[in-house]
Amino acid sequence: MKKFLFSLIGILAGFLVAALLFADLTPGKKATNEESSSANKSNAEKVYVPFGEKDEYYMMASGGHSGQLFVYGLPSMRKIRTVPVFTPDPATGYGFDKGTKNMLGGKTWGDFHHPSISETKGDYDGKFLFANDVGNNRVAAVDLKTFHTADIIDLPNMGGPHAGVFVTQNTEYVALPTRFARPLGGAYASLDKYKEEYKGVVSMAKFDQKKKKFSIDYQIVLPPWSYDLSDAGKKMSGDWIVMTTYNTEFATSNMEINASQKDRDYIVMVNWKKLAEEAKSGTKAKVVNGIKMIDPRDVKGSIYAVPVSKSPHGVDVTPDGEYFVAAGKLAPIMTVFSFEKAFDEMKKETKKEEFGIPVLKYENVMEREVDPPGALGPLHTQYDDKGNAYNTMFISSEIVKWNYKTGKVIDRTPTYYSPGHASAAEGDTVKPDGKWIVALNKLAKDNFLSVGPSHPESMDLIDISGKKMKHVMTAPVDPEPHYAQIIKADKIKTQKIYEKDEKRPFSTWNQKDARIVRKGNEVHVYGIAMRSKFIFDAKAKRKDEVTVNKGDKVFFHMTNIDLDQDITHGFAINDYDLNFEVQPGQTNTLEFVADKEGTFPIYCSNFCSALHQEMSGYLLVKP
Amino acid sequence: MKKFLFSLIGILAGFLVAALLFADLTPGKKATNEESSSANKSNAEKVYVPFGEKDEYYMMASGGHSGQLFVYGLPSMRKIRTVPVFTPDPATGYGFDKGTKNMLGGKTWGDFHHPSISETKGDYDGKFLFANDVGNNRVAAVDLKTFHTADIIDLPNMGGPHAGVFVTQNTEYVALPTRFARPLGGAYASLDKYKEEYKGVVSMAKFDQKKKKFSIDYQIVLPPWSYDLSDAGKKMSGDWIVMTTYNTEFATSNMEINASQKDRDYIVMVNWKKLAEEAKSGTKAKVVNGIKMIDPRDVKGSIYAVPVSKSPHGVDVTPDGEYFVAAGKLAPIMTVFSFEKAFDEMKKETKKEEFGIPVLKYENVMEREVDPPGALGPLHTQYDDKGNAYNTMFISSEIVKWNYKTGKVIDRTPTYYSPGHASAAEGDTVKPDGKWIVALNKLAKDNFLSVGPSHPESMDLIDISGKKMKHVMTAPVDPEPHYAQIIKADKIKTQKIYEKDEKRPFSTWNQKDARIVRKGNEVHVYGIAMRSKFIFDAKAKRKDEVTVNKGDKVFFHMTNIDLDQDITHGFAINDYDLNFEVQPGQTNTLEFVADKEGTFPIYCSNFCSALHQEMSGYLLVKP
Repeated sequence: MKKFLFSLIGILAGFLVAALLFADLTPGKKATNEESSSANKSNAEKVYVPFGEKDEYYMMASGGHSGQLFVYGLPSMRKIRTVPVFTPDPATGYGFDKGTKNMLGGKTWGDFHHPSISETKGDYDGKFLFANDVGNNRVAAVDLKTFHTADIIDLPNMGGPHAGVFVTQNTEYVALPTRFARPLGGAYASLDKYKEEYKGVVSMAKFDQKKKKFSIDYQIVLPPWSYDLSDAGKKMSGDWIVMTTYNTEFATSNMEINASQKDRDYIVMVNWKKLAEEAKSGTKAKVVNGIKMIDPRDVKGSIYAVPVSKSPHGVDVTPDGEYFVAAGKLAPIMTVFSFEKAFDEMKKETKKEEFGIPVLKYENVMEREVDPPGALGPLHTQYDDKGNAYNTMFISSEIVKWNYKTGKVIDRTPTYYSPGHASAAEGDTVKPDGKWIVALNKLAKDNFLSVGPSHPESMDLIDISGKKMKHVMTAPVDPEPHYAQIIKADKIKTQKIYEKDEKRPFSTWNQKDARIVRKGNEVHVYGIAMRSKFIFDAKAKRKDEVTVNKGDKVFFHMTNIDLDQDITHGFAINDYDLNFEVQPGQTNTLEFVADKEGTFPIYCSNFCSALHQEMSGYLLVKP
Repeated sequence: MKKFLFSLIGILAGFLVAALLFADLTPGKKATNEESSSANKSNAEKVYVPFGEKDEYYMMASGGHSGQLFVYGLPSMRKIRTVPVFTPDPATGYGFDKGTKNMLGGKTWGDFHHPSISETKGDYDGKFLFANDVGNNRVAAVDLKTFHTADIIDLPNMGGPHAGVFVTQNTEYVALPTRFARPLGGAYASLDKYKEEYKGVVSMAKFDQKKKKFSIDYQIVLPPWSYDLSDAGKKMSGDWIVMTTYNTEFATSNMEINASQKDRDYIVMVNWKKLAEEAKSGTKAKVVNGIKMIDPRDVKGSIYAVPVSKSPHGVDVTPDGEYFVAAGKLAPIMTVFSFEKAFDEMKKETKKEEFGIPVLKYENVMEREVDPPGALGPLHTQYDDKGNAYNTMFISSEIVKWNYKTGKVIDRTPTYYSPGHASAAEGDTVKPDGKWIVALNKLAKDNFLSVGPSHPESMDLIDISGKKMKHVMTAPVDPEPHYAQIIKADKIKTQKIYEKDEKRPFSTWNQKDARIVRKGNEVHVYGIAMRSKFIFDAKAKRKDEVTVNKGDKVFFHMTNIDLDQDITHGFAINDYDLNFEVQPGQTNTLEFVADKEGTFPIYCSNFCSALHQEMSGYLLVKP
């Protein structure tokens, strides 16, 4: 096997080529060479957002195996918030209060790879953000009004929904192709039966934006190839999804070598609309582990494969919806394919088949191949508003700018180091705005002050508003953003507090209504949190004391009656490993069994006022 | 009760006063007014650290109820790393691998308030950082060579070790005073017996830097007052610790009002050296729940109380060790006390007592009171290298600079908003360097792009190198840094990888030695992680497959043989809710019971190489 690309020599050669090509961008010369062509500002001034002003964009970055969403402001690259999605987070009580604890269902982590903002007419609409969990086979929706995770569901029959999330152009579907082939339902089967028993599956989920609830409309069963980054069509290609594959070799071991044998893998093209109609009113779907599953080979015209250079990492549809670009990974080229040519080719009758899937002729669908000299390891493609594509090069550590209609390479800039994905401002929409791109690097090396053997990742902010790209800053980040989407800040309309709602179940708004209700061994506290006290029982001698018996099931239904922006109260029970929060105007419940007798201080864990320190009470658990 | 300070009107009045006094620092005028006096740089240029350069300081900030340590670079204010301390963290596998899982002992969160870097001769030595857990009564040590948590122990007899961590000047002791009075051992006792049964306790822990292990040398039992921020003496006061108190009223309910009745609470002064000697060779310590406990009233000359303005939030010893400054919280003044005067006063025979503790005369120990007009809610004091003190003002949202030897107020600058603590560069040492102070604000309000009802906190970076303070930037931060220490970067010497050690238990370095050993229903995998594969069994047909029986206890002992900086491998088992990591050269063990039958992909969850995506295998669990 030609492994020269991945040897140390190959990597060093890549850096050398990049260094020679961009000698004027090496660190020592940066200050003078990186003045913006579009604005007469220093790099420092470009990213500095003074008090009283706000960032122009949100960057929503996946948090990888942290399981969380990382929210940044751009251009300052300041991280505004970690939004917990798949992993419990005591800083916000996520996974501790009853509602979110139930939503996580006992799971302790997630592996969130690719965020996708909901779209209307192919444009980010700023309403919801969808997240995949490669580790535990889930999909989540974050409500961008509150930045709270609104729903999470399990995805049966899958083995790591890595190759999502992407949405169709009006968010009709939230699509999640699997990465690892598994027997359906995860059943046991020897790897000797890989080709027969193992399957690749795509989940086509629907998200009801009013009820804030997911459902899986149907699943697509595919050959046990591994599916990698995928995308939905736009405009003329809006009925289609395109998915990259690797391991079309059906290897079951040592994938590094065995899944890299063939010179070509496939882009799989699926007509999601045809399959949706079949799922709705056809007869071909079978119910597997509770989910409607369709073999697209049974639905004529719904699936095709196009050969592509081996083991591509990603495929990205152009903003006009006319092309899809595959990034090579194991071949140092980007390949532009034409949807129009593909549609023409589909009409032809005689086609080769692979695993029963009709294969379109590469040379008839391919528009052009682009091979910038020395640019190694292309992983991902983003776009601007002028017909240009931007590719991350993992091995040669750079971004290459090129025109996808002419194939002309326009500019290259180094990144620090080894970028995986990149994210352009409004980059996945029908109208990217061509201002910024952020390289999400996989290695930081010695970029930042050392924090020991476990390094941060790094991100490069690059100004793409001029003809030449300008590297503006590098920022460290916790492990590990795999992908991000950058959205104009004014598209997101948040709510600042929870409005007072006296009909809300379990809520208590009037101090005198705070009460403790016992039902058998259940103790329900209808309590109030306010600056700067807890009121659990308005009629008691000590209003901030709760006494229960050992073994009681205790419910604290707490309402924060401070309807002021940013006045969140925490609620911790010392020595009981419990903590949750109530945001302004929110009602939230903590449920636990008082299985340990003794005296336990209760305190506000989120600094709320000048007398925050005094906001406390006691839980007494009688023997 | 005089609650006017904390009414909304009071708060608004405070802002108004601050706004009038510092009208030229309001946002619209910032750009022209905030040029540094010490360097001819714009604010933007002051904080911009270009690629190829590094920050000058580490800021180690507590992560509050996240339970973690937040590591920043200064002056860029870029967060370099979240270091997990008290809460599991799948991003680094903390709490998932066997060693760290045992260390957390099933606890799911912590409430980390006040970091303290180890000291030699009163100066940060950059070796370890100590962390308190107010939620679950623990103390932790982070090794600053690796930025890994090295040890955590439980603190029996305590109720939230809020008022620590602080260290004595050669790290002889890691001191942790309790916040909430509880019966010893947390036993049940009615709040009606508060004065008799509830105690305040200080833990005096020792940390063995070679073995990286804590022990509790002794505990000090005190009246059931609440102890707040405390400090150790320096130089001439090096044998002493000073602790603020509130609730000397012995209130048991509605603390906001009932613990704020008296005009004066106390600073408690304890001679830790005298008590250490008593603990070592005396007869007065009793063993309570396994810990030597001393009532300092039994050891003549070991404890005194000094009256102080009501409910102070903090007391901080000056760099020269000659004074201690209490910040008023409920009284708008800072009070400077003299150690020399206190020592003189201690020699006098007739003294009042409170709860058996000799009380020194306020007027004989107090050096001066400082009362800047309109400065409301002083919480915490930091120092520079020129004899100046800096106080955060929670209510009037500002930092006040004043000279602690003259009492003269020198400058004031607004903060955004409501600072709790502040942290000055090298600020807790015998030689602060007077360059920067960071205000750790409690409210961000509308400072940043909105992320819904739950806001980030904020931090202000302020240049204190000139006579006038200069507000340089504001940065958002996840909840919730309560305190931070800022240390010169060159004091921290990290290790970049784990050195190869063939004698390390469970390690495997040679690919051909990878093996699976079965002992009854235990399956031990001695495996290797390397770019870009897992090797579990060198002799098997598929070297990256592990097959076990349902119910087996499985141990993956993984060694990362890539001895290259920044090449960390993750190890996730799909659908099994498991993930951990092995850093370069590290050996780490995952232990779990294979209680679910089926086919489960194993994959590298931390992007490591061009073929990271192919770094995978399978766990098969037979029925």
